[in-house]
Amino acid sequence: MGVFAFAIGLATQSRAGNIIDCFFPAPVKSPDSDLEQAILDQFQSGTHTLSPESVSSFVREYQPTLEPMLEADCTLTSVLLNDDVGVSSTPEAFLKLHLLSHRLALPNTLNLDGIFAHLDTVAWTTEGALAVDELAERQLTARLEQRHFEVLSVDKFPKMTNYIVPSGVRIADSSRIRLGAYLGEGTTVMPSGSINFNAAALGPNMIEGRLSQGVVLGEGSDLGGGSSTMGTLSGGGEITITIGRNCLIGANGGTGIPLGDRCTVEAGLYITAGTRVSVIDEFGTKVRTAKGRELAGASDMLFIRHSETGEVQCRTNKKAIALNDQLHAHN
Amino acid sequence: MGVFAFAIGLATQSRAGNIIDCFFPAPVKSPDSDLEQAILDQFQSGTHTLSPESVSSFVREYQPTLEPMLEADCTLTSVLLNDDVGVSSTPEAFLKLHLLSHRLALPNTLNLDGIFAHLDTVAWTTEGALAVDELAERQLTARLEQRHFEVLSVDKFPKMTNYIVPSGVRIADSSRIRLGAYLGEGTTVMPSGSINFNAAALGPNMIEGRLSQGVVLGEGSDLGGGSSTMGTLSGGGEITITIGRNCLIGANGGTGIPLGDRCTVEAGLYITAGTRVSVIDEFGTKVRTAKGRELAGASDMLFIRHSETGEVQCRTNKKAIALNDQLHAHN
Amino acid sequence: MGVFAFAIGLATQSRAGNIIDCFFPAPVKSPDSDLEQAILDQFQSGTHTLSPESVSSFVREYQPTLEPMLEADCTLTSVLLNDDVGVSSTPEAFLKLHLLSHRLALPNTLNLDGIFAHLDTVAWTTEGALAVDELAERQLTARLEQRHFEVLSVDKFPKMTNYIVPSGVRIADSSRIRLGAYLGEGTTVMPSGSINFNAAALGPNMIEGRLSQGVVLGEGSDLGGGSSTMGTLSGGGEITITIGRNCLIGANGGTGIPLGDRCTVEAGLYITAGTRVSVIDEFGTKVRTAKGRELAGASDMLFIRHSETGEVQCRTNKKAIALNDQLHAHN
Repeated sequence: MGVFAFAIGLATQSRAGNIIDCFFPAPVKSPDSDLEQAILDQFQSGTHTLSPESVSSFVREYQPTLEPMLEADCTLTSVLLNDDVGVSSTPEAFLKLHLLSHRLALPNTLNLDGIFAHLDTVAWTTEGALAVDELAERQLTARLEQRHFEVLSVDKFPKMTNYIVPSGVRIADSSRIRLGAYLGEGTTVMPSGSINFNAAALGPNMIEGRLSQGVVLGEGSDLGGGSSTMGTLSGGGEITITIGRNCLIGANGGTGIPLGDRCTVEAGLYITAGTRVSVIDEFGTKVRTAKGRELAGASDMLFIRHSETGEVQCRTNKKAIALNDQLHAHN
Repeated sequence: MGVFAFAIGLATQSRAGNIIDCFFPAPVKSPDSDLEQAILDQFQSGTHTLSPESVSSFVREYQPTLEPMLEADCTLTSVLLNDDVGVSSTPEAFLKLHLLSHRLALPNTLNLDGIFAHLDTVAWTTEGALAVDELAERQLTARLEQRHFEVLSVDKFPKMTNYIVPSGVRIADSSRIRLGAYLGEGTTVMPSGSINFNAAALGPNMIEGRLSQGVVLGEGSDLGGGSSTMGTLSGGGEITITIGRNCLIGANGGTGIPLGDRCTVEAGLYITAGTRVSVIDEFGTKVRTAKGRELAGASDMLFIRHSETGEVQCRTNKKAIALNDQLHAHN
Repeated sequence: MGVFAFAIGLATQSRAGNIIDCFFPAPVKSPDSDLEQAILDQFQSGTHTLSPESVSSFVREYQPTLEPMLEADCTLTSVLLNDDVGVSSTPEAFLKLHLLSHRLALPNTLNLDGIFAHLDTVAWTTEGALAVDELAERQLTARLEQRHFEVLSVDKFPKMTNYIVPSGVRIADSSRIRLGAYLGEGTTVMPSGSINFNAAALGPNMIEGRLSQGVVLGEGSDLGGGSSTMGTLSGGGEITITIGRNCLIGANGGTGIPLGDRCTVEAGLYITAGTRVSVIDEFGTKVRTAKGRELAGASDMLFIRHSETGEVQCRTNKKAIALNDQLHAHN
């Protein structure tokens, strides 16, 4: 029996006694054998509550950043997952979201089955996480006490930055990035950018558009203002979108197909799997007409809508076309 | 003389003595005759201030959720509207916005004439509602006292969630939904979604686009990321946009015409009243060219811009075309 | 030696002793000779710390709105710039951003060279500005003390409204406007609107789109929902975009070229410098095909993509065409 993931943290309960929020400042994934053994020696599988005293030697040895916990008058929560099976509790769901935002796991590599069912819709307020059915009374009380009380969001997922701010990122408006987003070093998210859980900007990236659930954006690629990547939840299809390196989705453009490296979608153009695209080589010769899905994952493509004819074109070159044919040969 | 709407709540005054904010936790619209009589017996028409004691028996009998008010050292404000006439005071404006967000009235069913004139532009801050001319001094004082002071918005309309969070909704960023928005059960608003006052998502809906003032979105319809519905204020025309059931406005698409049920506007396409659209039946035959406004309100339409010819098309079927002709026969 | 700009304010230091935030409630630019002499008599060039007592007679005479500072137990910071040279310190960077947001300087009129290098990436929190490397510990401590602690953004630029709310503006979501934005009287910014530093809405304007760094929007012009103006930083070209008076960029539209007065870009259309545009006069006659950049700065243009042919057109009139030819005669 090994350790897939582990964390000690603080859980917030609703008045009814349900755990609605967990904060794990130093989550662990696939630890080395020394740490793995220490975890297995000290902690039980699943979710447990424990006193600061009971973990003090473990924390001092293996997780010194958690030492402030040891001085506090609080109850700690530990979660130990031996394997990456589906989500079966709220603390497990939070642990997996932490793994993603702490850059310990890439999107689409964790088993997130059941995560929606194990995350309550919570009111995230200036007085912390609250069960929605406690809200009206709290709001009235705060007003009567002339205390400002702000409801920042009402969602299953909290905002990432209240749990972890990964190194080397800039975030213009933290309300647009959910816990479970993966932001690599050098990622800048502008006010119109947003990143869902289980989505990644590997960095460096400039994100002024929407990075949907399941989408991974490669090094040096940018999402222009208001641009769109099609997710696999509402509206999206079944294709998981990956965008390679040094791509640009222009402002108000979008893609519903995966892209390789060095691809550009011009501002205002939305390419979907069903778009019929005229493929043009470097000599300006039309090679063929392809559906968007047939071009999925290819590199060195420039998508435009011709401004005189309205035709959607993929401008590329013979080498890229040959590689692309190879890519799809066995489809 | 009857009761159109009534509420007891808390008003915030500026230093100059103007009411700039009202919180009505349990507004009433068109009460049954028992409650109506009790209101008429106890309260005067218009806006009045009163003590908690004076309303204690009424509150205990008819509005028990307000009981915490009775214990507080505060001045209450009552508003009683006998009829739905135009807005003539700030408390009346707030009462009508509450009616909408409490799901007691649908958009476009209340007389909102004069509402802009009776709502001051207010600084909504972490110390509550403040008159804009008091702000600079407050900001300086807070800095000198090393107290963080945040100006969240400067607007006539506050954010809805600080007044009411209706049941069964999810809201990723509460700053994008104004008091006066109507969110039905099952509405999810993503970070790029926004809902103006006097606009409705009847629910269930996925809102990742902009629901403008006056627009009503039917059951099961979704607004894709960054999509747009044309309002009747700035930029919009005079047509009030209603979108029926099970429609989808694709990401970065938009509509300036009302739509019936089961309509789709593809990602990236914006249909306006003046767009010339080629109407295509289920056999692929072009039936006619129509202006967008001639298709207003019809069902079973799929709007695309053909990716090879740039032509905007409405793909539909003969049955829908016949119904649509009927719909517009008397225009 | 003269005074280009001057301010007294409050600086925030990181634990490591770096200045990461400055608040200047009453910045001065190009003062009249009386005030200029008083500044030169009392203050040294560059950035200095001083006690409230030492500036009390100056403040009482010239900056009475700062009087609350004189009573406080604090250290003040003064910045005096004799000339508009490049930015060489954090306080200078903040002073220049204040000049823009206080409407003392228009975008593209200040020397901002080096500003990025002199602005740290800071965590803007409900406990004020914090160095990013102090954040994790603060977050843990706040949780242990059951105190809510919100990380609002992580950015080089703070939000404007926490420093200055200029008169006559409305701002739906303050997190979308950076310090250094210039908002003229009568500017309304809706939830999807955003304004970068060194960008201006001269007012009155309705901003529901993105005003990028370097862009100036003239009187009476509106940015529709989700619309885009191309900046000169990421993704944008080298052309600085200016939009004249009474223009409209439609919802989800955009421009990568400067526009004169009374221009419209239809909803959903993105015009770039490279777009080939068919120029049509008031009689419906095609005059010529032009690249977007050849139309840069002209007035009375309506840009559409023809809904039947997909052709991008600029509808204008012979007078405007003649003026435009003149405008570009010496290019």
